Amino acid sequence: MKATPVKGTRDYLPKETEIRDYLQNIIMETYSSAGFQRITTPIIEDSVNLDKSEGGENLNLIFKILKRGKKLDSALAGVHPTEKELADMGLRYDLTLPLSRYYANNRNELLSPFKVIQMDRVYRAERPQKGRLREFMQCDIDIIGNESRDAEIELILTTTKALNRVGLSDYKVKINDRRILSDIFAYAGFSTEDNEKLAIIFDKQDKIGIDGVKAELEENGFNQTCIDKFIALFADGTLTLDSVANVCDASYVTELQRIIDAVTTVSKGTIPVEFCPSLVRGQGYYTGTIFEVEAAGYSGAVAGGGRYDNLIGKFLNEDIPAVGFSIGFERIFGILMEQNCSIPNRKKKIAVFYDTDTYAEALIYAEDLRNDYIVSVIARPKKLGKYLNKLETQGFDGFAVYGQEDGVKLFGE
Amino acid sequence: MKATPVKGTRDYLPKETEIRDYLQNIIMETYSSAGFQRITTPIIEDSVNLDKSEGGENLNLIFKILKRGKKLDSALAGVHPTEKELADMGLRYDLTLPLSRYYANNRNELLSPFKVIQMDRVYRAERPQKGRLREFMQCDIDIIGNESRDAEIELILTTTKALNRVGLSDYKVKINDRRILSDIFAYAGFSTEDNEKLAIIFDKQDKIGIDGVKAELEENGFNQTCIDKFIALFADGTLTLDSVANVCDASYVTELQRIIDAVTTVSKGTIPVEFCPSLVRGQGYYTGTIFEVEAAGYSGAVAGGGRYDNLIGKFLNEDIPAVGFSIGFERIFGILMEQNCSIPNRKKKIAVFYDTDTYAEALIYAEDLRNDYIVSVIARPKKLGKYLNKLETQGFDGFAVYGQEDGVKLFGE
Repeated sequence: MKATPVKGTRDYLPKETEIRDYLQNIIMETYSSAGFQRITTPIIEDSVNLDKSEGGENLNLIFKILKRGKKLDSALAGVHPTEKELADMGLRYDLTLPLSRYYANNRNELLSPFKVIQMDRVYRAERPQKGRLREFMQCDIDIIGNESRDAEIELILTTTKALNRVGLSDYKVKINDRRILSDIFAYAGFSTEDNEKLAIIFDKQDKIGIDGVKAELEENGFNQTCIDKFIALFADGTLTLDSVANVCDASYVTELQRIIDAVTTVSKGTIPVEFCPSLVRGQGYYTGTIFEVEAAGYSGAVAGGGRYDNLIGKFLNEDIPAVGFSIGFERIFGILMEQNCSIPNRKKKIAVFYDTDTYAEALIYAEDLRNDYIVSVIARPKKLGKYLNKLETQGFDGFAVYGQEDGVKLFGE
Repeated sequence: MKATPVKGTRDYLPKETEIRDYLQNIIMETYSSAGFQRITTPIIEDSVNLDKSEGGENLNLIFKILKRGKKLDSALAGVHPTEKELADMGLRYDLTLPLSRYYANNRNELLSPFKVIQMDRVYRAERPQKGRLREFMQCDIDIIGNESRDAEIELILTTTKALNRVGLSDYKVKINDRRILSDIFAYAGFSTEDNEKLAIIFDKQDKIGIDGVKAELEENGFNQTCIDKFIALFADGTLTLDSVANVCDASYVTELQRIIDAVTTVSKGTIPVEFCPSLVRGQGYYTGTIFEVEAAGYSGAVAGGGRYDNLIGKFLNEDIPAVGFSIGFERIFGILMEQNCSIPNRKKKIAVFYDTDTYAEALIYAEDLRNDYIVSVIARPKKLGKYLNKLETQGFDGFAVYGQEDGVKLFGE
């Protein structure tokens, strides 16, 4: 049997799990105190839902679950059964599709607007050599049923509050609108059907610069007049919200400006929000505002989200406005572990050693001590000194020996 | 697209999730204050581990994950690919196998004995018509590396403490030893290889009585002399720990008696522990003590566990003693929901209504109120009265309207 976990997944040690739980509790408490309500959905979804969910690249990364019993037999009886015939369910790749299904299934029992928390695992069959996790945790808040940009404002303020409270500092919120992206491409004269391809190239501007974007557009054989018109937008180095207003629907700019202004006012300027015209976000289901959080010194986003006004409509006969913001918990956990994050004001943890003939009495003694300490009852080891060293490296703060009068001794005292 | 969750899985509403989180926190806090350390392991395990894990009936209930990419192509290229060729991983059916693998993988970084908490989801492909969940939560504590029955005593005391604290009353702990079962069958003259079949029949004694057991043994063609000798053990109606001592290794009885005495002493007689000779527990990996908790008025166990001294040895070159106790969280949740469980001392939850032109100011006002309340900021609805009724049914305790001087109004005041 194999002792290592499945490739791309991780075992978490007790001290890691303790910090993960602590961080998740802070995020949960922050979201919950803002009136968001937690729900839970299954990790498994029907294939038909996953396949039609417009998840972009993620649709190629779904772990599929083999059919069972007679359905499997009948699939296998075919000459060359396909993946579709063999699997009827899959592991979810994000929490947005399950939420959309959930809302369609339970809307009569939910408040409107529905402000919802999801903190749970998702799965992507990334190639393991890329060093990415195949099982990871996301912490999402979403607002369903509010078409106003107030929802974006609240999500940005609440998500950044959680980031602040877990101890992440020095980050910025980047914001854009999918419709502005489309308008810019249309202004340059590109064909609408190339939008996705164009977006993927434009998204690289942070890494390769606007000259790199130009080169890649040319390599891909796009019309030179369109490319030149597009690149001319960046003549001053950047494309600001003011300047983009000349080439896109003005209402989109007004909406983004209102979001930026409100976040700045309410946070008293402590949350930097910045228009970023090359921000794309991969999922196909986004329809309007998109945003992400970038931590200084780390590439890639630590949180991301946007508006997906059509996804719930795929389950219902009407479109329902929705917008969500997801914290990539593993990124946050990684960054904070690098910074030697520790848990403030943790209850002290001690061992109570016992001898077998007085075990019951030692248990009663330990129970009394639990008012003040976390207490683990452990048979007295043969080499006590060596064992105490091990306890200390495992995060224990002290010990007591049942039957000895001198009570609790804390390490280093 | 399909709005309902996958068959046999559930969406949990906000008020259900709130109670589930509350119950899990109590269990977690109880286990943690006794010095148990939480770990997390992936939901996916390699097929080779699952297949060899001696999980009894559960091995037929594993959700299998289809291979991907070239490995799938090559499996499909065969004439009649088997299930084994098509799947390389599966969803875990319990938390004991993952823990055994985890311990083998990480033992050098863990304290010995290792006292561990797992609270997580497991998966079984039950036939949906049986009304059983296919995705459900287990709350386990295990002690690895302690061959003494002290481990059983601590697990029983700690698990029942958690059950008491979530509000479950009126239950009893049933206890037995797999080796006593074997000795009884051997005493009656049955062949060792029939032990599993015999155990399955004997396990039904609670439902069908000892006469039913006799009839079923006869139907199954077991030797009449053996049956008669076996049934004669129950001539006085039950088989007590005293009477079983005549037909099995006396040390097993001494060990069980010590567990029963210690739990009774430490709990001051509040935890009833009862020897139950027909207790079997399904998993094949149990090697010694087995136990479960039965709640009065409910059939089936709400918690169960036992000693599995050989399972970790399948990953390492040496056997490591281990024993675990698992709370079937869904049973507990179901029972407490029937009893209209509510959360004591919850912070009061209110809505703050705003008008769009003063949204930013309302957000600042709400933030101030969060010292005393859980506050959800909501656009003022057109029909306020009707909306207030809905808020109340959703568990809100009151509201305030931003810009009106009279502050927070609590419902019913």
